[in-house]
Amino acid sequence: MPTKSKSLRRTLSSLIRQVWTENMRLKAAGLVTMTWGNVSGIDRRRGIVVIKPSGMPYAGLRSADMVLTDLAGRRRASGRNPSTDLPTHLVLYSEFPEIGGVVHTHSTYATAFAQACRSLPCLGTTHADYAYGEVPVTDVMPPETIREDYEVNTGWMIVRKFRRLKLKPLECPFVFVANHAPYAWGPTPEAAVENAIVLETICKMALLTFLLDAPRSGAGRLRQGISKALLDKHYLRKHGRAAYYGQKKTGEPHYGNL
Amino acid sequence: MPTKSKSLRRTLSSLIRQVWTENMRLKAAGLVTMTWGNVSGIDRRRGIVVIKPSGMPYAGLRSADMVLTDLAGRRRASGRNPSTDLPTHLVLYSEFPEIGGVVHTHSTYATAFAQACRSLPCLGTTHADYAYGEVPVTDVMPPETIREDYEVNTGWMIVRKFRRLKLKPLECPFVFVANHAPYAWGPTPEAAVENAIVLETICKMALLTFLLDAPRSGAGRLRQGISKALLDKHYLRKHGRAAYYGQKKTGEPHYGNL
Amino acid sequence: MPTKSKSLRRTLSSLIRQVWTENMRLKAAGLVTMTWGNVSGIDRRRGIVVIKPSGMPYAGLRSADMVLTDLAGRRRASGRNPSTDLPTHLVLYSEFPEIGGVVHTHSTYATAFAQACRSLPCLGTTHADYAYGEVPVTDVMPPETIREDYEVNTGWMIVRKFRRLKLKPLECPFVFVANHAPYAWGPTPEAAVENAIVLETICKMALLTFLLDAPRSGAGRLRQGISKALLDKHYLRKHGRAAYYGQKKTGEPHYGNL
Amino acid sequence: MPTKSKSLRRTLSSLIRQVWTENMRLKAAGLVTMTWGNVSGIDRRRGIVVIKPSGMPYAGLRSADMVLTDLAGRRRASGRNPSTDLPTHLVLYSEFPEIGGVVHTHSTYATAFAQACRSLPCLGTTHADYAYGEVPVTDVMPPETIREDYEVNTGWMIVRKFRRLKLKPLECPFVFVANHAPYAWGPTPEAAVENAIVLETICKMALLTFLLDAPRSGAGRLRQGISKALLDKHYLRKHGRAAYYGQKKTGEPHYGNL
Repeated sequence: MPTKSKSLRRTLSSLIRQVWTENMRLKAAGLVTMTWGNVSGIDRRRGIVVIKPSGMPYAGLRSADMVLTDLAGRRRASGRNPSTDLPTHLVLYSEFPEIGGVVHTHSTYATAFAQACRSLPCLGTTHADYAYGEVPVTDVMPPETIREDYEVNTGWMIVRKFRRLKLKPLECPFVFVANHAPYAWGPTPEAAVENAIVLETICKMALLTFLLDAPRSGAGRLRQGISKALLDKHYLRKHGRAAYYGQKKTGEPHYGNL
Repeated sequence: MPTKSKSLRRTLSSLIRQVWTENMRLKAAGLVTMTWGNVSGIDRRRGIVVIKPSGMPYAGLRSADMVLTDLAGRRRASGRNPSTDLPTHLVLYSEFPEIGGVVHTHSTYATAFAQACRSLPCLGTTHADYAYGEVPVTDVMPPETIREDYEVNTGWMIVRKFRRLKLKPLECPFVFVANHAPYAWGPTPEAAVENAIVLETICKMALLTFLLDAPRSGAGRLRQGISKALLDKHYLRKHGRAAYYGQKKTGEPHYGNL
Repeated sequence: MPTKSKSLRRTLSSLIRQVWTENMRLKAAGLVTMTWGNVSGIDRRRGIVVIKPSGMPYAGLRSADMVLTDLAGRRRASGRNPSTDLPTHLVLYSEFPEIGGVVHTHSTYATAFAQACRSLPCLGTTHADYAYGEVPVTDVMPPETIREDYEVNTGWMIVRKFRRLKLKPLECPFVFVANHAPYAWGPTPEAAVENAIVLETICKMALLTFLLDAPRSGAGRLRQGISKALLDKHYLRKHGRAAYYGQKKTGEPHYGNL
Repeated sequence: MPTKSKSLRRTLSSLIRQVWTENMRLKAAGLVTMTWGNVSGIDRRRGIVVIKPSGMPYAGLRSADMVLTDLAGRRRASGRNPSTDLPTHLVLYSEFPEIGGVVHTHSTYATAFAQACRSLPCLGTTHADYAYGEVPVTDVMPPETIREDYEVNTGWMIVRKFRRLKLKPLECPFVFVANHAPYAWGPTPEAAVENAIVLETICKMALLTFLLDAPRSGAGRLRQGISKALLDKHYLRKHGRAAYYGQKKTGEPHYGNL
């Protein structure tokens, strides 16, 4: 490895370590079968993205295996191939400037929502603590968008959906990619992994809620989700300007800024 | 920490240890994702409640992190913020004098019942061993009650539901808060955690029972639950005056007092 | 403990150890929440049953805690109360002379079948490897049978169902007690625990099969189960006179004797 | 053991070790209850198959317990009985010359598909990454085929289904045997076990997808699966001539050869 590469790795050692740690945590949390998952993080000042290498088993994965690229996807300081999903991560970093970490998984329940091409209405306060309303599903990709620049276009399907819904990325830090699986993000790789775990959990809760509700009123009643008042209360007591959840002191940053 | 605080902590050291232990057990039992859960206990003579601090990760949580407050919610002997759900615990302690511990979780199956705003009829003896009939769900909170004193009002939604049903708190040591998640309680923090685990288990069993029953007779048949004779038999052989379950000697207290 | 008791415990030490081991295995297999489960074994020659004590936590349960009784339920060589379900075990031992071990659990999926009062048709070869056809559910107990000698009558509900179906106990080594939970048995305590694990597994498989089948043809098509030819093939290659599964040598005993 | 046997075991020690390792991994992955599962591998040059012995518990299973047979099923260098499913494995090795390992399990979700006699359409990219379209289910075996040479005929039911569908074995490395359970295979025993794990995962995802989809449009809409474009993209980026997933260098072999 040339001296320049080594030096870049040294400068970004904290972020590299963080991305590696979060990839391992994602696996430990049970969200990853085989190698189907990846976490990345970004150093905004230097414009460098750190991501898991493609198709490598978790057992034995080392911090030094993490791949560094710039925002155009050019490899920096690494001999490994980056995750094939790198182009999707890059579009999200470019278009969502407030995020610092991105996670892709095929976690079971969230993938079921993606496969059913079904968005997730806010059915309770667990959901409201993390997302300000429905979790969207992207449109189904048209064949020509699949054939050319598939991974880049996956990113654009997400961005376009959020723009059309006038939804800010940190107001709902996850999405279902239709026919595929979820993406999650956050201000840091750690927050992104937390959000991926939360998404899987609320998807399971929601599916069970649908099953309990089915014999009574069909799927219709639940489509609307909880009241605006309850959604506001829970989302804002955690993420709003006057948040009072946790041990935070005044002046510490909150997720959103509603 | 001032001397007075230290002395109070020393006096209550056994309860503090117990509350910490039960918070850790709740996590170990798989009922808590992230930090979504809290256990509290009360010293009735001194009027002091011990509860988990708000939003702190379980890994590294120490006995010394537990927060002490009086029944008005004023912090005593602690620098941490108490769980944001403290006011709900306090209402339960004030209105249910027979309880000594309270647990709140977002455990998956019980939360599904809460989200579906569905009460749980007694479908079998597992349930009848712990609760004397249906597990109630609170009414959906009206917006004005959410906006002001939300956590206090959550407690009142529970209390009001039990009063309207003429149900004693130890006859059914758990409830679903509509659109939210379950609460459980008991004579001690340990019993409260046991009840939270039991509730999650009977909710899963019930959901599976509904699925098995669905193609035959719709949800209707199961609404009624098991016969009064079987409910009496199981509940009373464990909690009644002539209970004969376990290793208890005559004179040892039982849960209920029916 | 009087000398006579000590001597009986010494004589039966192998069975006592076995029953303790199988109780612990049942817990380790995930079939027991709290203390809801018990395994017993019998020494037919001496007419002594060894069973788990009532309501004691598994952590710290010792071999010495196992309770010894005769077939009338009189305690022998023990200070502990036996499981409250002992009378059910005793009826099974008296009426099913070919069995040597009995297991009671509230395992989740099998309990769902019991709660739905639904028998389990043979849907596949996993089931056919262990039971020669449908797993029956007892009738719902009438109130007077519940109020008097409840646990004894539970045993009789099982025995009566098997007699009415002309089913031998080792042809189907488990049953659902309506509104309650499953019982399993076998030639030894070890075989009984294996059967309890198998029952939970085939119940889960069956529920999932019903869900997959539902949108196509309703519950009706699956009621019949697999063909007689396939049932015979699988059951008999394992339990029949010419069994060829496993490492058994000629002359070793098989389960059934069809 | 005669010298010739010992010498054969020495020659094939690497394959024997591999087959043992993969049997243990299958168990560790949670796909095997009791002894219901087996992995085999083949040495094509010598025409020797290595397979797990019949009905032996996993705990304590040693490499030396693996059974060696020729393609006619004659035991070579072993005192153990081979898995009763050996004849099925042998048919697959004979008719699918491109495979090097075979796995049979009764994993829960895949077995539910087999019991429901339901094929699995490709509902998402997780599936498309491993199989080029629908996972087939064999026809139900007619009684006479069950009574004679049952295990051999099981193999033929699989082969016939693939031939009728003009499906190459590595294009879809798994199948549901109707009323029974899944088989999986691959170029090596390791790949076969990976495929067995993947099959279980996509079966669970699919069942959840059906449940989510049910209230909207019935089972019909999902029957078709994802678009040809998406299927091609995912399958071919991993298995096609120009695959770009993973760390593979040019010249390394890929699974399929489409």
